[in-house]
Amino acid sequence: MKRSRSRPLGVPDAGPLDPDVRGEAPEFARAIARKLLGALVARAGRPPVEFVLASGELLYAPQGRSVGRVVFRDLGAVWGVVRQPELGFGDAFAAGRVQIDGDLVEVLFHLFLASDSVGVSKRPLVGLQPRARPNSLRNAREHIRHHYDLGNDFYAQWLDERMVYTCAYYTHPEMSLEQAQVAKLEHVSRKLELAPGMEVVEAGCGWGALALHMARVHGVKVRAYNISSEQIAYARERAAREGLADKVEFIQDDYRNITGRCDAFVSVGMLEHVGVDNYPTLGGVIARCLREHGRALLHSVGRARPQAPNAWLERRIFPGSYPPSLREVMDILEPWRFTVVDVENLRLHYAKTLLEWLQRFDAHADEARQRYGESFVRAWRLYLGGCSAAFRASTIQLYQVVFTHPANNAVAMTREHQYTGSEPIRWKEF
Amino acid sequence: MKRSRSRPLGVPDAGPLDPDVRGEAPEFARAIARKLLGALVARAGRPPVEFVLASGELLYAPQGRSVGRVVFRDLGAVWGVVRQPELGFGDAFAAGRVQIDGDLVEVLFHLFLASDSVGVSKRPLVGLQPRARPNSLRNAREHIRHHYDLGNDFYAQWLDERMVYTCAYYTHPEMSLEQAQVAKLEHVSRKLELAPGMEVVEAGCGWGALALHMARVHGVKVRAYNISSEQIAYARERAAREGLADKVEFIQDDYRNITGRCDAFVSVGMLEHVGVDNYPTLGGVIARCLREHGRALLHSVGRARPQAPNAWLERRIFPGSYPPSLREVMDILEPWRFTVVDVENLRLHYAKTLLEWLQRFDAHADEARQRYGESFVRAWRLYLGGCSAAFRASTIQLYQVVFTHPANNAVAMTREHQYTGSEPIRWKEF
Repeated sequence: MKRSRSRPLGVPDAGPLDPDVRGEAPEFARAIARKLLGALVARAGRPPVEFVLASGELLYAPQGRSVGRVVFRDLGAVWGVVRQPELGFGDAFAAGRVQIDGDLVEVLFHLFLASDSVGVSKRPLVGLQPRARPNSLRNAREHIRHHYDLGNDFYAQWLDERMVYTCAYYTHPEMSLEQAQVAKLEHVSRKLELAPGMEVVEAGCGWGALALHMARVHGVKVRAYNISSEQIAYARERAAREGLADKVEFIQDDYRNITGRCDAFVSVGMLEHVGVDNYPTLGGVIARCLREHGRALLHSVGRARPQAPNAWLERRIFPGSYPPSLREVMDILEPWRFTVVDVENLRLHYAKTLLEWLQRFDAHADEARQRYGESFVRAWRLYLGGCSAAFRASTIQLYQVVFTHPANNAVAMTREHQYTGSEPIRWKEF
Repeated sequence: MKRSRSRPLGVPDAGPLDPDVRGEAPEFARAIARKLLGALVARAGRPPVEFVLASGELLYAPQGRSVGRVVFRDLGAVWGVVRQPELGFGDAFAAGRVQIDGDLVEVLFHLFLASDSVGVSKRPLVGLQPRARPNSLRNAREHIRHHYDLGNDFYAQWLDERMVYTCAYYTHPEMSLEQAQVAKLEHVSRKLELAPGMEVVEAGCGWGALALHMARVHGVKVRAYNISSEQIAYARERAAREGLADKVEFIQDDYRNITGRCDAFVSVGMLEHVGVDNYPTLGGVIARCLREHGRALLHSVGRARPQAPNAWLERRIFPGSYPPSLREVMDILEPWRFTVVDVENLRLHYAKTLLEWLQRFDAHADEARQRYGESFVRAWRLYLGGCSAAFRASTIQLYQVVFTHPANNAVAMTREHQYTGSEPIRWKEF
């Protein structure tokens, strides 16, 4: 199969499976493959996973028990992984040239855990690491269309009924995805200390679930921004159907064009798409909008320390995306003198959410296969399962950061109201 | 009065009040004072505070209402403030050469609020900013002795009955200082998810209140470190009196010499004394001690963004101290791959705590005056009142940062237990 350079934002189509070297490749080529892959796996912390050729020939065997097997269907896939571990593996997996025997998420979890434990370099053994594309106004629109405009009916098959495409919040193990998403909307609302009549700006509103929840449950007025036309259309339709069109305005525009003032500023799952170069700009938008007494909340996938994004995920699934470390989040806040009030890491909630999504996606895989092809299904299984594994292995985090203008003494003194729904206590009562 | 360069760690003695220029200084000198102080106050955000000479002559008048007056008893004090605003003001206040008419904390609050709102440079108009002293093992001992070994009976006069010399936690406005300190000890304990039999290391244990609380209420074993001999002696005596000597070991040593492993690592109010140069070292100590499944908590005065410490406070009250920004806290965590779980900013709780301390201190000011002199009392009023004002004005923060080793999935999934005392829910239940 030929990997096309002209489709940088697409998932490579599954070509016919290439059986070239099911034992028939020259011994010296297989010896080099064993050597190079062995070096890569050793550098990646020697995970408890076997690496084999489809012929059964071992490329790497762990010392102890193995949780599963990575099976290469051709030697070219091995070269691809050696050259660019993340991109090569992802593309080969999507193309069916690499398979995982065993529990997909479990195997990926152990791969991530091992490589993170040795602080493995993201640089390939050979060749160059692809670079993330900058998110200009135009690129941003293209990047968002690539992922979020796949069709609302596609997402409706495996998201919850409210179409919330961000980390849910499980306060009890027996919660359903639907319940956990409502719990998340409420958790965010409580962190924002919403009260009836407040004006809220939401940047990156997805299909509108949070905006509608805030208006319905807390009686606030919301202006919600998004550049995905499919999502905005869906959200407007839902607002009209729920009789909330006078309380929630959905605006198809970039966060950089947000105008007006607000008592609360919230962005759930957009920061990943902003890019570090635009952090001071984002901070400036919030500083301009947020009134002196207001609260702001950023909810984003992040890192424990600054690291390059997963190259395959950035290239094939979320073009232009970058999960920031808390240090990098400070680049949004410090220039505008914001004060951090509260940070919560919900990474295991996202591990659980993604597992649920993967199960639901799998239940509808046939429809996705017919519509988008086999390699799309493989790529999305790798994306959903891989991200669940990565959150569980702690190679990615989920931060909710609440912050305010300095000397905003109107903010809640404790976080008790987040858990009891009680009225927050404030400085003025002291 | 001559300011001595040979007493860098002491508070200047109150000399005889110098009446030199109660109107008698040449007009050109007073004109220069008006000019320079006016420039300084303009640069400091034009606070709603009058600046006058003791003669009544105005040096600066705000445009609107004034919340109080800063009164200079001599022109030399004006020069001192102009040359080194923080150090000059603090020293002159301690010496009685500057007074504040009106509510001390209210006036200082407005001074901090105004200067922070313009992002005022900490550089003096003329001259050099004093530099913080590095905290070598030897310096650290000297710095801690300077402040914490003033005498336990002195602190007993104005701290709560448990001698907790860090930010209390007020869950209700009507709480007493005593109750709020117990609430803080419990809040920290819950964040650490303590359970009977756990081993805890505490770095910088003060008079031992947290260590004793953790052992008494949560049944854990504690090794608590401190380099202040007076505090350690007090803590040991208390552990023996409470029958907790077999559960709590108080060790007089530097945090850099901590040995052994633990299930929870906690440090409340020590980080301010560590210094940024030692952050990777502190992180290394925690990485070495903390078991894989354990939790760590750092509680520290901090900043919204990296800034030089208040020069007077650093020189006269807390030598070698430096309150870090969250960005700087990452220098402790990132090199050791720690994952941030939870950050809470309790700055207004410290504003309240310090107000309580100031009231109690004032009630015993005569005893402190007899023992340490008038300038000591003035300096401590400025320190306690100024810090309360600074927390209220948000120029300093109080961070509690909870973190773990990466992929520690034994940590609580939500923070509900911090507020309800319920059993934390964990990933393994999912």
